[in-house]
Amino acid sequence: MKYNKTINIKTSSRDEFINVTGIIRSCIDESGIKDGICHLFNPHTTAGLTINEQADPDVVSDIIRQMDKVFPWNNHYLHGEGNSAAHMKASVFGSSLAILVEQGKPVLGTWQGIFFCEFDGPRSRKLNMKIV
Amino acid sequence: MKYNKTINIKTSSRDEFINVTGIIRSCIDESGIKDGICHLFNPHTTAGLTINEQADPDVVSDIIRQMDKVFPWNNHYLHGEGNSAAHMKASVFGSSLAILVEQGKPVLGTWQGIFFCEFDGPRSRKLNMKIV
Amino acid sequence: MKYNKTINIKTSSRDEFINVTGIIRSCIDESGIKDGICHLFNPHTTAGLTINEQADPDVVSDIIRQMDKVFPWNNHYLHGEGNSAAHMKASVFGSSLAILVEQGKPVLGTWQGIFFCEFDGPRSRKLNMKIV
Repeated sequence: MKYNKTINIKTSSRDEFINVTGIIRSCIDESGIKDGICHLFNPHTTAGLTINEQADPDVVSDIIRQMDKVFPWNNHYLHGEGNSAAHMKASVFGSSLAILVEQGKPVLGTWQGIFFCEFDGPRSRKLNMKIV
Repeated sequence: MKYNKTINIKTSSRDEFINVTGIIRSCIDESGIKDGICHLFNPHTTAGLTINEQADPDVVSDIIRQMDKVFPWNNHYLHGEGNSAAHMKASVFGSSLAILVEQGKPVLGTWQGIFFCEFDGPRSRKLNMKIV
Repeated sequence: MKYNKTINIKTSSRDEFINVTGIIRSCIDESGIKDGICHLFNPHTTAGLTINEQADPDVVSDIIRQMDKVFPWNNHYLHGEGNSAAHMKASVFGSSLAILVEQGKPVLGTWQGIFFCEFDGPRSRKLNMKIV
């Protein structure tokens, strides 16, 4: 039993974390898979995926702001496009994520939300999913 | 063939890496699965998972200390709970990890150990596992 | 249907990202698996795995250079071997990666390449793969 899906995401600023937890819950539900793994893959080199607190939006704001200090946007980079910092954040946050599925639901902690991380927006993005 | 398990972990300081390699070996053994994937998932937003050297405990100490410099505990963060640095480390270390299983054992390098990373302890934590 | 492979990699400098996209495409092809997951695992504690831009080599150069600033090679670390910075980068980049396979090919974005990240070379390295 397998389920493939591509989710379209529109981002509206340079750095933005889009909460995709609801969409992913719906997809798992639609797949009919009760016990398995939900693989998420981000096909972009200036975006990432993460799981973090979704209750207080200040958490995401703090993460975005501190990452901008650690990987400054302007820092005499070689890459001509000028978005090297976004590429760095992409590698730090990672491209793939595996979520356990039990009783037809994602196994997530109380405070956890799944986020698509935009690091060079605004753009139209895709998120690939395969539930097995 | 599937095996689900939740491991309970007690941490005793704010930043602490708990070596869970032995428990995971036992679970793989108990599952009877000889060739597959062991998925680990951390359901907390101020903890993480990593694989790193287990021979010299100074490696983990150095990692913890440098991460505290890169993501300082006090840094005028917005999040009222005061643990934003722990949330950042959680995103950097990641929530999910996939370990290959061959001949009933995890495929790990000579120096590798699997660590549950506490970034806002001491707390009672859980680690979710699914072997497929 | 399962396919296991160990890829041998020779690195030639301390920090170096080796593009393994071509080898991985060949392995997926050889496996005959059309729809599945390609799990990659790095069995070393001073190396990592990442997916990032392969078109402009300046992106990788910028990432390597900035990571060296965030995790300086010499920084009064405790670990006697002197390569603590490499261990930190290993944890940040991560040990495992899951790539979706559809129609016998890895699902990758236009600019994405898969890289084995050497952080303490030159060395002979291995990369473990399991396609399911």
